Amino acid sequence: MGADTQKAIFEAAKSLIETKGFSAMTLRQLAAEVGLQPGSIYRYFESKDALLQALMNQHMLSLLESWNKVEGKGEDEDEDEDPVSRLRAFVAFHIRYHIERRADVIIANLELRALGDDYRADVVTKRSHYEANLRAILAEGVKAGVFPQVDLEVAAYAIIAMLTGVCFWYRSDGRLSIDEIIEVHQKLVLQGVVG
Amino acid sequence: MGADTQKAIFEAAKSLIETKGFSAMTLRQLAAEVGLQPGSIYRYFESKDALLQALMNQHMLSLLESWNKVEGKGEDEDEDEDPVSRLRAFVAFHIRYHIERRADVIIANLELRALGDDYRADVVTKRSHYEANLRAILAEGVKAGVFPQVDLEVAAYAIIAMLTGVCFWYRSDGRLSIDEIIEVHQKLVLQGVVG
Repeated sequence: MGADTQKAIFEAAKSLIETKGFSAMTLRQLAAEVGLQPGSIYRYFESKDALLQALMNQHMLSLLESWNKVEGKGEDEDEDEDPVSRLRAFVAFHIRYHIERRADVIIANLELRALGDDYRADVVTKRSHYEANLRAILAEGVKAGVFPQVDLEVAAYAIIAMLTGVCFWYRSDGRLSIDEIIEVHQKLVLQGVVG
Repeated sequence: MGADTQKAIFEAAKSLIETKGFSAMTLRQLAAEVGLQPGSIYRYFESKDALLQALMNQHMLSLLESWNKVEGKGEDEDEDEDPVSRLRAFVAFHIRYHIERRADVIIANLELRALGDDYRADVVTKRSHYEANLRAILAEGVKAGVFPQVDLEVAAYAIIAMLTGVCFWYRSDGRLSIDEIIEVHQKLVLQGVVG
């Protein structure tokens, strides 16, 4: 029961923060959403800040774990291990993963400043671990001579910003399917506009 | 005096919103920052929402105007008018303009949801006018056969997200100069990772 309630609090909090913003959300509203007495929320989170930190932490851990699974899958198949294929896989993974978790993306991007310094440092470190995967793919490509020299840090930031940006305009009833959007981004990341 | 006070309110509001968020900022704090009685703020803005709308509106108008000046400058020089040069100029302009206006970028990106629907629609329309400049450059390149076919709308969103992303990690005491950062992005936008 405890785990279910915690999950219900998470989901309700995500939805409230996505719509109203973290600062405008009160624990009283959150408790009402999940049918708890206001004071009972504290059995699950010691403060509103701790709740935000737990939400962001969970999002980053789950992102890291999911990417590790995608990378792990290709280990037995040699044709999936060249840098171009890995980069294409990263683009597809990142867009698909984040499009399905719009609330998490909005919270991670818009509420980072609401976190205390220590909590923020922790989220930034986890984010950096995730970005390191992309930097490693780029470095491998440069080393193999498939990609020309590029500043790995800036390139990784730029690619991730481009891919995450999809969440801010994508609509499930829009003109293009997720697959088509992924294809445009794979092409842009790999070949740029000039092609 | 009125215009100076209004400007002081703008600057103080930007700084408060950047640090604390719009929802957490009170008009009382804002008035204190600029040395006004709380009630006097209403001589300049009829509500907190109207202030946010004015800030975003000013940011978008000034962005559009600044880009028009950049484009205008090249009109007499034929060598600046090919799509590749125009795209390179757009990349440099967008990064440079936004890096110098970090507070505006944070507000425009993080507080859009705090605007009422009508205000938001107006900002989104202005943003779309700005994006249309990039789409036009891309379309011209495709038409001229310099750029291969690409979805103009998605490509414009992707490029702008990539470029604006710089504001979220750039530090003036960082490893790379603005010029170096611009160069990496011009290369990524034009040639992608494969080069």
